[in-house]
Amino acid sequence: MANFVFGVDVGGTTIKMGLFDTNGQVLDKWEIPTRTENGGENVLPDIAKAVADKCSEKSITKEDVAGIGIGVPGPVDSKGIVHRCVNLGWDVFNVNDTLSEMTGMKVKAGNDANVAALGEMWQGGGKGFDSLVMVTLGTGVGGGIINDGQILTGSSGAGGEIGHIHVQDGEPEACGCGNHGCLEQYASATGVVRLANRELAKNTDPTVLKAGECTAKDVWDAVKDKDQVAIRVAEQFGKYLGEGLAAIAGVVNPQAFVIGGGVSKAGDVLLSYIEKNYKPVVFHGSRDAKFVLATLGNDAGIFGAAKLVLD
Amino acid sequence: MANFVFGVDVGGTTIKMGLFDTNGQVLDKWEIPTRTENGGENVLPDIAKAVADKCSEKSITKEDVAGIGIGVPGPVDSKGIVHRCVNLGWDVFNVNDTLSEMTGMKVKAGNDANVAALGEMWQGGGKGFDSLVMVTLGTGVGGGIINDGQILTGSSGAGGEIGHIHVQDGEPEACGCGNHGCLEQYASATGVVRLANRELAKNTDPTVLKAGECTAKDVWDAVKDKDQVAIRVAEQFGKYLGEGLAAIAGVVNPQAFVIGGGVSKAGDVLLSYIEKNYKPVVFHGSRDAKFVLATLGNDAGIFGAAKLVLD
Repeated sequence: MANFVFGVDVGGTTIKMGLFDTNGQVLDKWEIPTRTENGGENVLPDIAKAVADKCSEKSITKEDVAGIGIGVPGPVDSKGIVHRCVNLGWDVFNVNDTLSEMTGMKVKAGNDANVAALGEMWQGGGKGFDSLVMVTLGTGVGGGIINDGQILTGSSGAGGEIGHIHVQDGEPEACGCGNHGCLEQYASATGVVRLANRELAKNTDPTVLKAGECTAKDVWDAVKDKDQVAIRVAEQFGKYLGEGLAAIAGVVNPQAFVIGGGVSKAGDVLLSYIEKNYKPVVFHGSRDAKFVLATLGNDAGIFGAAKLVLD
Repeated sequence: MANFVFGVDVGGTTIKMGLFDTNGQVLDKWEIPTRTENGGENVLPDIAKAVADKCSEKSITKEDVAGIGIGVPGPVDSKGIVHRCVNLGWDVFNVNDTLSEMTGMKVKAGNDANVAALGEMWQGGGKGFDSLVMVTLGTGVGGGIINDGQILTGSSGAGGEIGHIHVQDGEPEACGCGNHGCLEQYASATGVVRLANRELAKNTDPTVLKAGECTAKDVWDAVKDKDQVAIRVAEQFGKYLGEGLAAIAGVVNPQAFVIGGGVSKAGDVLLSYIEKNYKPVVFHGSRDAKFVLATLGNDAGIFGAAKLVLD
């Protein structure tokens, strides 16, 4: 029985690494830079070296490592094949096989958002649930679906891409994905700012928010101070996200939604706007789903990656 | 190795039964009435007797039967527990254990819509795919999700309840589920009629459709005859369903959508209205999903039930 497992979360600028025991206790964590030049050819060798160095430092043998889990920023199919991670410069290849050859260890790769969902289920806000939807409200809106304890990868690795569910007709601005009216355009940090600026453009009521200058945090701080304009923005945000999550519940019927990402720092007040818009429209079989905050922050990826290879 | 398997599809008035070989060839099929009186206490004994009688008739021993798969009209969890099938008068109990005790055979129960999806994947329109969404456009809109060859049951058996995804604000009429603005209110047979009557109420153009008298079939026949009012109804239907399926694709990323139920008899023209509204709003990772017609009709349930217990 191996005692250790590595969890790796590959971002566009930094690779987060964690050494865990197989019960999910983090023993060490550190970061290395992501070298994306030359098609990202150094990314996996750098990870292999970091793993080897850590094993030397801690006097851990290869036999005592259950494997390396790795979350990457793009679609990954169930065999570990990535289909172009544009942020890393990667083309199409099998991450599991490639990194396993370099390290002699078992490797399992997953999409970073899906892997973060697994991490939150294992040791975070989703602990105790085995069917959940992780919603990451950051620059964009990411998602990860866990069904019966397993990541729902989807047929081409695009499972859980909930930020790009169409929720609004007639949106003039394009989403990063090229479509118009995606959930991400209203429920991400930039989405909240978009809603605020549009509300401010037609507003004549007193408010602390200033058009063109406010952040998502400013909006939620103002909501807590009962600023009526900010509350109108929160209502719109809650309607888009609450109804979007109700649609998702109609598909996968989770026990819980775990809300993370920078916007979720607003805390329980944010959950309340989501939940009150969720309940009236969701199918009764999913009406009692729980809404909880993510707790692992930026570490969800390394936790989930470790869990991925243990499963 | 057993050579035979039974597939049972329990409806509110009739129980469909099938005897299959384990390769999916149907050897015999028949029906018995559903006796719903006294809390539906006779339903499982009637099935057990029908199985025993068929085994006698065909000189099949118990050892030569892989099991009995059974689809029921209500939520079923992964252990076989039904949570009130109102159409049968059933309360909460374990179908797998109960029918297994009566027959001495392995039993596996599933929700009828999910089981039909499995049947279409095994021997119907979805053959060759292992990740698909079955959409049944009948009196209501039913759904079944197959992910990696397995039914996605959901945490309380409400996975794939796609007819109750909220797609329209401000709908004055209530859906059967109690909510307002469910997909089923526009994409079912009665939904198509609802859209047609509303279109006719404000229409001044020539049309063969008559308000208060037309059926879903009338609408689709008129679409094929290029009736402009019927085409406007088809556009609305296609927008609700196409955008709804795009949202579902954003969650589970299927290879294909299999469209069945009475409304689907309209055929390829119906698929075209769905697909042209799907493609512009779906996330690119799911843009190439196929749209195919179901082929098993009312037999999808017995096929899927047989497959369920073989898996």
